[in-house]
Amino acid sequence: MGQGGKKMDILLEFITSRIKTKKITEEGVGVESFDDGAIIPLPDRSIDIVLTTDSFTVSPLFFRGGNIGTLAAAGTINDLLMMGAHPIAMTLALVIREGLKFADLAKIIDTIVAITEEYKIGIVAGDTKVMPIGSMDETGLIINTTGLGEIPSGQRITDSSLVPGDVIITTGSLGDHGFAMLVTREGMELETELKSDVAALQSLIQPILAYRVHAMKDPTRGGLTGVLTEWATKSNVSIWLDETALPFSDDVKIVAEIFGIDPLHVSCEGKAIIAVHPDDADKVLNLLRSNHLGEQAVAIGQVKDSRKGQVFLKTTIGGHRILDKPIGEPIPRVC
Amino acid sequence: MGQGGKKMDILLEFITSRIKTKKITEEGVGVESFDDGAIIPLPDRSIDIVLTTDSFTVSPLFFRGGNIGTLAAAGTINDLLMMGAHPIAMTLALVIREGLKFADLAKIIDTIVAITEEYKIGIVAGDTKVMPIGSMDETGLIINTTGLGEIPSGQRITDSSLVPGDVIITTGSLGDHGFAMLVTREGMELETELKSDVAALQSLIQPILAYRVHAMKDPTRGGLTGVLTEWATKSNVSIWLDETALPFSDDVKIVAEIFGIDPLHVSCEGKAIIAVHPDDADKVLNLLRSNHLGEQAVAIGQVKDSRKGQVFLKTTIGGHRILDKPIGEPIPRVC
Repeated sequence: MGQGGKKMDILLEFITSRIKTKKITEEGVGVESFDDGAIIPLPDRSIDIVLTTDSFTVSPLFFRGGNIGTLAAAGTINDLLMMGAHPIAMTLALVIREGLKFADLAKIIDTIVAITEEYKIGIVAGDTKVMPIGSMDETGLIINTTGLGEIPSGQRITDSSLVPGDVIITTGSLGDHGFAMLVTREGMELETELKSDVAALQSLIQPILAYRVHAMKDPTRGGLTGVLTEWATKSNVSIWLDETALPFSDDVKIVAEIFGIDPLHVSCEGKAIIAVHPDDADKVLNLLRSNHLGEQAVAIGQVKDSRKGQVFLKTTIGGHRILDKPIGEPIPRVC
Repeated sequence: MGQGGKKMDILLEFITSRIKTKKITEEGVGVESFDDGAIIPLPDRSIDIVLTTDSFTVSPLFFRGGNIGTLAAAGTINDLLMMGAHPIAMTLALVIREGLKFADLAKIIDTIVAITEEYKIGIVAGDTKVMPIGSMDETGLIINTTGLGEIPSGQRITDSSLVPGDVIITTGSLGDHGFAMLVTREGMELETELKSDVAALQSLIQPILAYRVHAMKDPTRGGLTGVLTEWATKSNVSIWLDETALPFSDDVKIVAEIFGIDPLHVSCEGKAIIAVHPDDADKVLNLLRSNHLGEQAVAIGQVKDSRKGQVFLKTTIGGHRILDKPIGEPIPRVC
């Protein structure tokens, strides 16, 4: 749905408030919900169609751990998965600046093809536009991917379905993608292995759908804080995080310290935050940990009934800090 | 699918040749067909899903007859219609350069909303990215819209279904959009009413689907020549145009003359080229003419069996000219 932060929220509100026809049917989910995608029930059929769209304006195009193509393919697949959908197909629209190297373009497209082939997702429609040199020089390439998925009726997962008692799980460490982009962009020579965590999560997520997963979201824009503040508001609950449980790699801690950026606001591209019924939490954690994409899965907090709409961080010194969205995106243009 | 011309064809071939998983099922239509959209049959269901995607990089954003929003909404609706589909929903992804006027953005979004509301098409998912000043200065805004439609199984209309004997119809005059963009861009003070023909064609097209319409396409990239050369190749037929029948407005004739640009290569955004069974041609023409969007509908040529793959123009002096795609787009960045 876009970049994180409150400034961006104002722009998004400006845009969506003008879009009056948001829903196709009363049962659908449209732009107004700010969810990861739209749900379109097909009349008299047992499945809903899910649509999600994303433009990728990332700079640089290649970074440690992936490229803009990895982001586009994995991001779109993950957006579908986060709603409980099975990804079927994707469109691929390229805006290419004249002078972009064919070898780079080839590498990016091959990356998208490899990921979509792995999960048998068809790239079914495309569009290519060419922009003159002097325009779009910072990126050289903008990609839009729109994903189509299907979901058995009644099995959709939305942001407004958290229930007090739910356990909040992260499938792994936080902030890797955003900080890896920052390090690449600044040309920093760190003695660090820090790289983007970008990955399509299909093999990780589909098995856990057999359990009572109440909400699921990839912490892209706005990072973990972005996800949890939206959930708390939309589900009218409070969320209580345990700071000691939050998994950050050593590299993320170092870079966060150097730049003075709170890693709770920084995006991942290969992680999911999951709210699950407390009786299913251990089973879900075990399943996640059995997959290499979820080896570091851990419970990080709980959903409560009191102080609705807020997110709290239990700090190591025993206090509570209220988590709120930052005013702007701390590391812009990372997805 | 992109801009017209042979240079663009080479780029598109480069891109699509790398995309190996083009089809989801054998019965589907994917990127490899270079059709206006993809067709995705839903197993055990009586409808196919149609997906189409387009990025709009037009400059300037506002022009005589419309703006980039008119193009995005009408273009996506028309792409769905051209495959015989009923448009259901649309995604809207905006890449906005910092400093774009809110009033302009509002006007553009309101245009999209007005068109989609008229036809009860939901804007169901969105994305917004912001680019820094100094990037994308030429446009200030790039829009991607992806359209979702449905089509009863067996009723799809593709580029490869022309049959010898078919009558070729245009729903109106040719080249208006491209030349209107050119005039706006050059800041020309013409004593002319020339404006873009951009329009969503839903009310015009849906009634004629009751007849034997074998192919249908909006002459955007590459203009009329682009449509017909693709049809001749894909359907393995020849197409014979009658020059005296081709409808051009006086304004288009004047501007084409001034710039030395062949109007047969110039794009329209509110016209359809239709190949119809000869016994149904008059009925279809009458239906089209009864709608204000098709008042000037006229038969312009015929499909034949001989000299397959080629397009001929019977000139006023009695000869035949072979029509071929231009090397580049004569007026770039008009859609």
